[in-house]
Amino acid sequence: MPNTNLHNYLLGQWTPHDGDGFPQYDAVTGELIATCGSEGLDYAAIMDYARRVGGPNLRKMTFRERGQMLKKLALYLHSIRKKYYPLSYRTGATKGDSWIDIDGGIGTLFAYASLRRQFPDKPFHIDGEAVGLSKEGTFIGHHIMVPKHGVAVHINAFNFPIWGMLEKLSVNLLAGVPAVVKPSEITSFLTEAMVRDIIDSGILPEGAVQLVCGKGHGILDTLGEQDTVTFTGSASTGRKLKALPNIIENAVAFNMEADSLNAAILGEDAVPGSPTFDLFIKEVRREMTVKCGQKCTAIRRIIVPENLVEDVQLALSQQLQKTTIGNPTVEGVRMGALVSKKQLETLRQRIQELAGETNIVYGQTDGFEVMGADQNKGAFCSPILLLNDDPFNKQGAHNIEAFGPVSTLMPYKGLEEAIELANMGKGSLVSTVATADERIATDYVMGAAAYHGRILILNEESAKESTGHGSPMPLLVHGGPGRAGGGEEMGGVRGVKHYLQRTAIQGHPTMITAVTGQYQKGAAYKEKAIHPFQQHFEDLEVGETLITAKHTVTEADIVNFANVSGDHFYAHVDETSLEGTIFERRVAHGYYLLSKAAGLFVDGRKGPVLLNYGIEDFRFTKPVYPGATIGVRFSCKEKIRQEKRDEEDIRKGIVKWMVDVYDETGETVAIGTILTMVRMRDQN
Amino acid sequence: MPNTNLHNYLLGQWTPHDGDGFPQYDAVTGELIATCGSEGLDYAAIMDYARRVGGPNLRKMTFRERGQMLKKLALYLHSIRKKYYPLSYRTGATKGDSWIDIDGGIGTLFAYASLRRQFPDKPFHIDGEAVGLSKEGTFIGHHIMVPKHGVAVHINAFNFPIWGMLEKLSVNLLAGVPAVVKPSEITSFLTEAMVRDIIDSGILPEGAVQLVCGKGHGILDTLGEQDTVTFTGSASTGRKLKALPNIIENAVAFNMEADSLNAAILGEDAVPGSPTFDLFIKEVRREMTVKCGQKCTAIRRIIVPENLVEDVQLALSQQLQKTTIGNPTVEGVRMGALVSKKQLETLRQRIQELAGETNIVYGQTDGFEVMGADQNKGAFCSPILLLNDDPFNKQGAHNIEAFGPVSTLMPYKGLEEAIELANMGKGSLVSTVATADERIATDYVMGAAAYHGRILILNEESAKESTGHGSPMPLLVHGGPGRAGGGEEMGGVRGVKHYLQRTAIQGHPTMITAVTGQYQKGAAYKEKAIHPFQQHFEDLEVGETLITAKHTVTEADIVNFANVSGDHFYAHVDETSLEGTIFERRVAHGYYLLSKAAGLFVDGRKGPVLLNYGIEDFRFTKPVYPGATIGVRFSCKEKIRQEKRDEEDIRKGIVKWMVDVYDETGETVAIGTILTMVRMRDQN
Repeated sequence: MPNTNLHNYLLGQWTPHDGDGFPQYDAVTGELIATCGSEGLDYAAIMDYARRVGGPNLRKMTFRERGQMLKKLALYLHSIRKKYYPLSYRTGATKGDSWIDIDGGIGTLFAYASLRRQFPDKPFHIDGEAVGLSKEGTFIGHHIMVPKHGVAVHINAFNFPIWGMLEKLSVNLLAGVPAVVKPSEITSFLTEAMVRDIIDSGILPEGAVQLVCGKGHGILDTLGEQDTVTFTGSASTGRKLKALPNIIENAVAFNMEADSLNAAILGEDAVPGSPTFDLFIKEVRREMTVKCGQKCTAIRRIIVPENLVEDVQLALSQQLQKTTIGNPTVEGVRMGALVSKKQLETLRQRIQELAGETNIVYGQTDGFEVMGADQNKGAFCSPILLLNDDPFNKQGAHNIEAFGPVSTLMPYKGLEEAIELANMGKGSLVSTVATADERIATDYVMGAAAYHGRILILNEESAKESTGHGSPMPLLVHGGPGRAGGGEEMGGVRGVKHYLQRTAIQGHPTMITAVTGQYQKGAAYKEKAIHPFQQHFEDLEVGETLITAKHTVTEADIVNFANVSGDHFYAHVDETSLEGTIFERRVAHGYYLLSKAAGLFVDGRKGPVLLNYGIEDFRFTKPVYPGATIGVRFSCKEKIRQEKRDEEDIRKGIVKWMVDVYDETGETVAIGTILTMVRMRDQN
Repeated sequence: MPNTNLHNYLLGQWTPHDGDGFPQYDAVTGELIATCGSEGLDYAAIMDYARRVGGPNLRKMTFRERGQMLKKLALYLHSIRKKYYPLSYRTGATKGDSWIDIDGGIGTLFAYASLRRQFPDKPFHIDGEAVGLSKEGTFIGHHIMVPKHGVAVHINAFNFPIWGMLEKLSVNLLAGVPAVVKPSEITSFLTEAMVRDIIDSGILPEGAVQLVCGKGHGILDTLGEQDTVTFTGSASTGRKLKALPNIIENAVAFNMEADSLNAAILGEDAVPGSPTFDLFIKEVRREMTVKCGQKCTAIRRIIVPENLVEDVQLALSQQLQKTTIGNPTVEGVRMGALVSKKQLETLRQRIQELAGETNIVYGQTDGFEVMGADQNKGAFCSPILLLNDDPFNKQGAHNIEAFGPVSTLMPYKGLEEAIELANMGKGSLVSTVATADERIATDYVMGAAAYHGRILILNEESAKESTGHGSPMPLLVHGGPGRAGGGEEMGGVRGVKHYLQRTAIQGHPTMITAVTGQYQKGAAYKEKAIHPFQQHFEDLEVGETLITAKHTVTEADIVNFANVSGDHFYAHVDETSLEGTIFERRVAHGYYLLSKAAGLFVDGRKGPVLLNYGIEDFRFTKPVYPGATIGVRFSCKEKIRQEKRDEEDIRKGIVKWMVDVYDETGETVAIGTILTMVRMRDQN
């Protein structure tokens, strides 16, 4: 430990806490590790610093630049990640648990760094498509999303001191919003160690991150309308904070993710001896014992066909027996300790409550074997399996959360009942259905999706690569309704949007083009003397338009195109086939129109255009018959700077072009977007 | 009025209220219209009925079917809309005000009916794209959105008894969620009249809508984790409801839209005599006087360059003088009454508070001319303009909302100050910037967007067709941060999502294909003896795949394609030009690959495929040189049933196909989606 007085990082400085502080103990040995505290902190000043210094520093960067910053940070932390493991063991975590926390957290940083490519190279995001609001097209609407001008306050749980911080920080930083991180006072010694490295790296701009290691009483009291709270932890604490007067008064965004009573359902097809049955047992065991069951996503309810209850109980008990409990640093230990003696005490109470109406069929809270540690000094607990034979009437298992290696087995009769039981948890983060039957999987998902933020379909086909029931993934949403808090984190781009204000903008297309940097149909445009294919990326202007020469489509064109492509679809080549179709005569191929449009808008001379990259949303809107004359309005729609992949790479960007193919009546016959890669003039 | 005892519509029955009820008065004449009440209602039973009867009835319909139901309802209400006007006048609304409420509300129904085409013809929605979660591709993730299993409770404001109901109802019904509508007890007589027609029409399924006309005390007390509250009205009431214990406890979604201190900014370019100046004056006058200023979007703060304050004050006063106040049924009246004497009293208090630090420069709260009505009996008020000469220090105008025809003029020096002032409202629904200068518009939007849910850029180019500062549009989000409540309504598809639970699903591509009905890369597929182009819509199976013949690309192909398309881009035709490009040799056109792919996958014989509809997201991923041999995996990706446009129309659907073009190494060279229109076998 760098210091037994854990420092807070505030207003750009490491500051020791005042007073006695809160003592942090080794979960395995019971030794005092450090004290942390947050008495007397001036939260108004802390939040103001974030908003005044951190916010503007981040907002002047584009999404791409912020993403590159995350990548740099992720690479740095990855290079030194091993140093956090010894500290992590002191939270009771095994090596595997620590990998989830440490490497999993850094992995999330990498994932969000990569997401920069899904955002524009601008400080703001453009949401969806423009919408027409008028007949003549002189008034349109669009949506932009800008970083909120506030601070993100992250209230984290004790179980993942690193991942809990990084899965949130990566998102708010990509969005352009600074954060104040408040890890749990029980395990903040580990968070603090990493924040020291983050700050020392100098990768983040000033004010982007602050850290409060103590209990943080009053930390939300000065938040206002531009701020965001994310909360991970117990539902009761979360609810209290969410209803704080200033949170309500200022409509502070409050994203809550609470422990829930997650269920795993064994499909009726998954009989003993089937691979799905074995996978189910393995998954349940894993989710009961990983992190000593202290995971908000852990499986708390095991819902199995009534005729398989005994088989499951037996198989699971056999597996659980292999769970060597003890000191995480000792070879062979598969489950460590709970985070603290206090947690152990609470857990025992919950088990007692559950056992009031159900039976413990495996495990005990005391007197089991502990390897390499003193059972009385560490917060150890064996896996506990309960059996609830009447889960519609004995409802404790659907309401009482025992935050440890504890789960309740219960029977169902028919899938409808299984769904009903799963949903009786009143909202959870995740549920798993183990089945090889597509019908069972589909029916379960349709019946249960409204109550579960994530559903894993587990079977042999996917098991080898499955990331498992318990692991939230950066590109999938993490959160769930009701008991799970009603929040939503990560989910790729979706998570970033929680830190952005969506604003509708309305005006003439020319104005909306100016604001968004995206050419809007109907906006003023200019024609230049120089062909757009002869201009470098920097010189192209959004809206600049080439009005091409025209071409009268002939029967010969259609025949030639059929021959060169091999596309002899009846409507193009068989004039006797058109009865009952919308076509009056032989019609030109859609792909011919696109190809001929290229023939009209392309400039053959070698220039800055490097290649044809792709096509987006092309529609063929009117049949073109021989004799029709087509022309193209070819407009620069959007410019997206690309990063150099390496030192050797040239500087370039993607240019989106609106291709509007019209006929002699002026009507559009085909319209869409094509993408080219264009070299920059400046290669330095 | 059908009854002076306004009935509630509960559990499928019209029920009179018990007790004395709340008296509703004519805003113009002061006459008693009706009484409403909600004493003793059993909300647990009401909500249960919605969840048990209404929810399942709506959820068994697809989005398309629900949209068609909305269309039918909109057509019906449109046909009888005139009957609501006389009732609307009694709320103090003029004909113009009533048009916004009645026709505007029905228009929103039409808009949401049309949105059905943006959803699948399924009871659930698919959100975004699948994400890979594994190296070998055997484990992927996706997101679906299913209707919540709860009820939507709409707490509405008095000012728009029809629009307020319909803009919310259209969204929850399209989503598949039933509603309990609770209009304001002050004007629910108008809402009740329309609900009677809605029920009588028999268009909605049982349980889809219930109505509580009274105060509704306790209406939220039995809501749970699947329910949603939308609130429109005063911020203070909204905050109280949002913090109710069971709302917090069950993480009930709470979407709040509160009155805010919306601002209009005059750009420095918009000097007197310019068209923008005149438009600004007109817009401000309109937004002060429409609905007697009782609009949550009304302009409360008029922010103008300091050297133009006098000009604006003069021009605006001249315009306001033309506002004839009086009985809405009398010809020539341009502004009606406030909704009630009580509202008038509150408004006068607010004006007094404001006038404490600012000056009234136009209008009075008493003693003005009223046409066709008795000033003492109706709730009349003249437009009031206040002048705040020091808006950074005199902050009342940024905090006190006078819900009537009242607005405060204030000066700014430089755009930065204007933005700061606009943002001092701490979050609003909308602001307007009047400017013809793209730079001013862009800078204002970038500086102010985080604080305003909608921004209108007003100038001559768009004015003719502009829908104005005050009008929320169905396809744009309505709502704003902070004081405006932090909620978000409408916004097209976005609004519907508030009633859906987003659930991540994970599993093997075959399972995700089964659940979503959308072919996922890596899923099991079948090849059939019959060519896909020879199959009718019903017979096509998602995942069925054609492995085409192959084709060796030759120099002749490239030359022929260049000739038929006219695309002589250097990389295809000039072998001396390739230095510094990524191409090693003459490369095939991307459009050739797409065209040749069609040549490989198309079956020329006349069959159920009617036409080529379009292309989505095509990417060219690897250069193809002469000598390469390409083939296509052509898979049915998704089927979207189409509605018949009229009786004559044939039954058909859109089929999306995944086109995966690969070369002799098995690597993909081009990949994307194409769309065809396919006839149904069954034409009845």
